[in-house]
Amino acid sequence: MNKQRLEAFSDGVYAIVITLLILDIRIPEVLPSALGAALVRMLPQVFTYVLSFFVVGLYWFAHHRVSHQVKQIDGTFIWLNLIWLLFVSVMPFPASLLGRYPLQRIPIAIYGIDLILANVTGFLITVYLKRHPELCVHPTSSASLRRQVPVYAISNGIYVVAIGLAWILPWMSYGLYAAVLAWLMVRYARINNPFQPKKGKRVANPTRVGLWIGGAKRG
Amino acid sequence: MNKQRLEAFSDGVYAIVITLLILDIRIPEVLPSALGAALVRMLPQVFTYVLSFFVVGLYWFAHHRVSHQVKQIDGTFIWLNLIWLLFVSVMPFPASLLGRYPLQRIPIAIYGIDLILANVTGFLITVYLKRHPELCVHPTSSASLRRQVPVYAISNGIYVVAIGLAWILPWMSYGLYAAVLAWLMVRYARINNPFQPKKGKRVANPTRVGLWIGGAKRG
Amino acid sequence: MNKQRLEAFSDGVYAIVITLLILDIRIPEVLPSALGAALVRMLPQVFTYVLSFFVVGLYWFAHHRVSHQVKQIDGTFIWLNLIWLLFVSVMPFPASLLGRYPLQRIPIAIYGIDLILANVTGFLITVYLKRHPELCVHPTSSASLRRQVPVYAISNGIYVVAIGLAWILPWMSYGLYAAVLAWLMVRYARINNPFQPKKGKRVANPTRVGLWIGGAKRG
Amino acid sequence: MNKQRLEAFSDGVYAIVITLLILDIRIPEVLPSALGAALVRMLPQVFTYVLSFFVVGLYWFAHHRVSHQVKQIDGTFIWLNLIWLLFVSVMPFPASLLGRYPLQRIPIAIYGIDLILANVTGFLITVYLKRHPELCVHPTSSASLRRQVPVYAISNGIYVVAIGLAWILPWMSYGLYAAVLAWLMVRYARINNPFQPKKGKRVANPTRVGLWIGGAKRG
Repeated sequence: MNKQRLEAFSDGVYAIVITLLILDIRIPEVLPSALGAALVRMLPQVFTYVLSFFVVGLYWFAHHRVSHQVKQIDGTFIWLNLIWLLFVSVMPFPASLLGRYPLQRIPIAIYGIDLILANVTGFLITVYLKRHPELCVHPTSSASLRRQVPVYAISNGIYVVAIGLAWILPWMSYGLYAAVLAWLMVRYARINNPFQPKKGKRVANPTRVGLWIGGAKRG
Repeated sequence: MNKQRLEAFSDGVYAIVITLLILDIRIPEVLPSALGAALVRMLPQVFTYVLSFFVVGLYWFAHHRVSHQVKQIDGTFIWLNLIWLLFVSVMPFPASLLGRYPLQRIPIAIYGIDLILANVTGFLITVYLKRHPELCVHPTSSASLRRQVPVYAISNGIYVVAIGLAWILPWMSYGLYAAVLAWLMVRYARINNPFQPKKGKRVANPTRVGLWIGGAKRG
Repeated sequence: MNKQRLEAFSDGVYAIVITLLILDIRIPEVLPSALGAALVRMLPQVFTYVLSFFVVGLYWFAHHRVSHQVKQIDGTFIWLNLIWLLFVSVMPFPASLLGRYPLQRIPIAIYGIDLILANVTGFLITVYLKRHPELCVHPTSSASLRRQVPVYAISNGIYVVAIGLAWILPWMSYGLYAAVLAWLMVRYARINNPFQPKKGKRVANPTRVGLWIGGAKRG
Repeated sequence: MNKQRLEAFSDGVYAIVITLLILDIRIPEVLPSALGAALVRMLPQVFTYVLSFFVVGLYWFAHHRVSHQVKQIDGTFIWLNLIWLLFVSVMPFPASLLGRYPLQRIPIAIYGIDLILANVTGFLITVYLKRHPELCVHPTSSASLRRQVPVYAISNGIYVVAIGLAWILPWMSYGLYAAVLAWLMVRYARINNPFQPKKGKRVANPTRVGLWIGGAKRG
């Protein structure tokens, strides 16, 4: 029950952040005849909006997975969770900045730094739960923690590269952010039942995102 | 429980989108003596606001019905659900655009495209559940799926016609959007108990929206 | 469970509306030396803000009480509920208008009309539940419904008078809105346990709002 | 269940307020070459944002703790809770004002007054629950209430000092607000399991916020 209220609060924050993002897409104030051109000029904003929408969605998914293994919460966990929410709640600012100043290095860097901070906080929470098995449904095994390290390291490494590229190939930075997002989304999509994982090994979902419409037969 | 958190998040998004719509109705900045005329000029915005309010309400209702038959969720379902939420979360933008540039063809077309995208995503989710009976309380029968096809086809067909009419009879486009909304709302209102349907056949509610105040006697 | 999702959605809408109200209190853009005077000029907005905050809170309370007696929902109930939410969601607009154009008759009238529409919808829902005892935990007795009629009639009557007074004594209109709000809040505060009323008769709470700090002894 | 809906509504309000805070951090409108300098000038706003984020988070935590001991609610409790939410919902205004007019005495004073009002309301709710043991899971002991008095007195006392210092040492006021926040956060973080306190005595958490990463062994 305690956990449920933390989840309700966190779900609320995620739902609000993901919905507020649209408020930064201001409608243009132009003559009706110039509306089409004005909307085309907004495409970088739209791209940043969609990217950020799925970034927040991904963090919600990640939060869900962490919280699923928690059975009890303590004060420190609540503050760590709040710091995690801080870096997510902040997202409308870098998203709006990146949409307003596309291809500029400072907005790209700020966007990437926010992604890294949120990522690192998520990892700290995982470490904290590893050290506090009494808070978890099942104690986190060292092997399970070790399996997660490369995912965090690779995504944060790519974010750092993307920030660096902002000075020379800013379009590439966008591409890298989108690529990490797509990679993590496919990773999550392949989890058969993300909230009741089979113990011991993770069962990859044979149905691929791109294939399911084609209709695999399944018992 | 898993499902409940997805529902809580989705309910949050719907509740926020439906409430944010009012933020786009900015109060006019005029002399008090000109306030009445300024408010009358806002009527197209008010119409678009009310239309969009019920559009979002309708999608919430549809989400509720889909989610009711789900007993378990997987990664792909979560992303499909997020894409559905994306096209709903976007709604304040086309609504605001249509209110600001009434009778203009581009805003009418963007509004209709968003409705179609949301509709198609809802249908894809239904198809996905049909192909994954292990996620459902009861497997979706082919007959049940086939019954839904005309509803999606008719509403999307009318949206396409409305988009086309934007170039010659823009008022008609508004009328068609409103008509589809009204048709779907009455359809839903006639469902006796939308969340515990009798198996096998759907029981139409004899009480009509327009009649209930008149007071049908009921056991 | 069905009801719970309707409640979660409605609670979300109420929570968002009540919180969005503050967004209409824009901070003044003046020289620091002129800040004090600028803030004093905002007092009418602050008054309207506080009034609207408790109006929305009161409707949340009323929604809670209605929903408490419901055990099952149908399509019509969902739409009636959505219309009720519409008139609550709209509140930031009249509140903002009244704060921006204080003592002007049109904003006062629009504010009052929204209150009346929300009130009437609430009453229609009560009538609907009376006619559909199969949706309720206990059928609504005719006596109980009749007891509520004067409350609706008096509050709406006063709202109509307040709207009329806007043309001659606008300050009085504010006073009447606030008086109805205070009256209804005290009425609700006196309910001992609003969500588990004793059957047959309503027990008034002997502890008054103004007295409880003084410390009535209670078993 | 009744309580749960009050919690859901309150959680919603906290989640929205904490997320809305970012909307007041408007992106600067400058030439791309001046963006870095413009962002540096926004640092006072960022500081106020982070401070306010954790202030709201702290009140959410406090609300959670109060609500945890409640088993039943009455009308007066609902209004007291709503007044508490009012002083939290208002927060975006003083936060925005303080960010826009840093080091100015009026914004510092308004910020502090809001903190004091929220604090006092929280204390009144505790007193109310003490006087109404029938609403609580366990009656609040006089000793427990007396233990809380110094915390309220000290924090409010420091707020008053901070408001006074705004006229001579405004930076000090910020420092005092932040210090009280940090003190209360550490106090809460040390609670082992805030929502299932051992009866009779509160068990301090031996794990310190600053130490846990170093890895205390725990059974």
